[in-house]
Amino acid sequence: MGHSEPIGAADVTGAEAMFAADIASRAVGIELIHAGAGTAQVRMSVRPDMANGHGIAHGGYVFLLADTAFACACNEPGSVTVAAGADITFLAPARVGDVLTAVAALRTRRGRSGVYDVTVTRVATSATAPDAEVIAEFRGRSRTLPPPRQEGIAT
Amino acid sequence: MGHSEPIGAADVTGAEAMFAADIASRAVGIELIHAGAGTAQVRMSVRPDMANGHGIAHGGYVFLLADTAFACACNEPGSVTVAAGADITFLAPARVGDVLTAVAALRTRRGRSGVYDVTVTRVATSATAPDAEVIAEFRGRSRTLPPPRQEGIAT
Amino acid sequence: MGHSEPIGAADVTGAEAMFAADIASRAVGIELIHAGAGTAQVRMSVRPDMANGHGIAHGGYVFLLADTAFACACNEPGSVTVAAGADITFLAPARVGDVLTAVAALRTRRGRSGVYDVTVTRVATSATAPDAEVIAEFRGRSRTLPPPRQEGIAT
Amino acid sequence: MGHSEPIGAADVTGAEAMFAADIASRAVGIELIHAGAGTAQVRMSVRPDMANGHGIAHGGYVFLLADTAFACACNEPGSVTVAAGADITFLAPARVGDVLTAVAALRTRRGRSGVYDVTVTRVATSATAPDAEVIAEFRGRSRTLPPPRQEGIAT
Repeated sequence: MGHSEPIGAADVTGAEAMFAADIASRAVGIELIHAGAGTAQVRMSVRPDMANGHGIAHGGYVFLLADTAFACACNEPGSVTVAAGADITFLAPARVGDVLTAVAALRTRRGRSGVYDVTVTRVATSATAPDAEVIAEFRGRSRTLPPPRQEGIAT
Repeated sequence: MGHSEPIGAADVTGAEAMFAADIASRAVGIELIHAGAGTAQVRMSVRPDMANGHGIAHGGYVFLLADTAFACACNEPGSVTVAAGADITFLAPARVGDVLTAVAALRTRRGRSGVYDVTVTRVATSATAPDAEVIAEFRGRSRTLPPPRQEGIAT
Repeated sequence: MGHSEPIGAADVTGAEAMFAADIASRAVGIELIHAGAGTAQVRMSVRPDMANGHGIAHGGYVFLLADTAFACACNEPGSVTVAAGADITFLAPARVGDVLTAVAALRTRRGRSGVYDVTVTRVATSATAPDAEVIAEFRGRSRTLPPPRQEGIAT
Repeated sequence: MGHSEPIGAADVTGAEAMFAADIASRAVGIELIHAGAGTAQVRMSVRPDMANGHGIAHGGYVFLLADTAFACACNEPGSVTVAAGADITFLAPARVGDVLTAVAALRTRRGRSGVYDVTVTRVATSATAPDAEVIAEFRGRSRTLPPPRQEGIAT
């Protein structure tokens, strides 16, 4: 599976199944480029309806992109892991038309808790854009849910 | 100006002018309920296209709502203040159809740096919804930009 | 119990019992001024051996003071609550001889998770000190441990 | 310069000069093992006077160790960089007698802002200790101060 093309139907993993069910991420145009053990890469173009009152990409969409990469990196078949929280540092603005990638990687997992780092980078695509530049650093805190009790549950 | 109705044209302040220009927030259906000195309250309904792979509101939209309240609370006429970063703790899931409010308040400002707290609450609106419940706590870090230099700049 | 004097032996609560056992906090000279339901206030003087390479109080000691207030605020008799993590924003430096207070308050608790805010303030005590000034804002994330299993355990 | 021995007098860099002036870090027994471009490694033993009310290393000392590594990693000759803030996630407790290392690395720097990651690991030294284990993940946010103005200032 290449890193530069969206994932095809033949490559479905836990992350990909979850991404396929993620209506929100697909509605904003996010593509899943890669998902592996504790890692994921996603991509999104900044649309005109994502601009905030300063004329740049709303921080909520930068966070959303990073959060989707985080979710894809921390979910594995056989368990459910949710975001307990996250911190984001905004380093540079993104503008309408920019193409952003978010690359997530597991940093540490212990017991039910995990820490994942996600870097959001602007990819140089327009004539006026600078070279690839980090625009945000995100750190997600995950929590794996206990398995559902088995008594009387047909799964 | 009441807290229960969206702001009308006669009440325009710095926050409201910025909100009016915030295409992203309006495109997702956020309403500005209140804005005052260092405070703001916004409201959003969770739409079907905001659900993530776990079938609940994508954390990115919960963050986006809180971030909009933060932006409205930290902007005052005569200066530009941007988000340098933020931390969010997710305490409970939100579901499609839930109505959420985010209430932002200045905690401390010193020099160009500020800290704002935003609480996101689910408002009980449907027959099955529980009472109002906090679903996320957000803390935003703001940075006020230096004023543009005046020498020789015609603006 | 007054807020201006250290707590006496007659006022012992869960927080106070824990503080009494907190060797680290007492070794750096922290005093517990107040502890109540979800709140606590502690005080510390910046000693010469707390200065860092910039000649100001090492951030680790500012964090330690806030963390002690957090621990006192989140512990109640009958359960054990630990710090899962924390974020601190440094707003102003503290100097040797400054007296600092940290005031902790519960923001939200849900299930086993809690969010507590702690403000660290420099109290004006020396001739050259400015008025009371916030030097750091801390937000602690707590996790209440499950009660120990009772089978076969004599407690 | 080896990574396993404290730095000697012949290897002094910006980080090392700052560490030498860091009274607080040396008073708690921290050793600087390594410092390079955007990186640093420090080491500390948990002393009996660092235990908190739960009988484990006070989170303040774990933070202090990480913060020292962060300070050593982000300071370079010719400028002053301070901690604007930090987030720490506690993953496992440290106990009296444990030897901890903190390894800091630059993640992203842009303009005056930087993000550094620090991992705190327990080194297996006693008979009962487990293998090396990550006990905390720290992310520091740095701010490089503007150079002092030169007009009329004799420095």
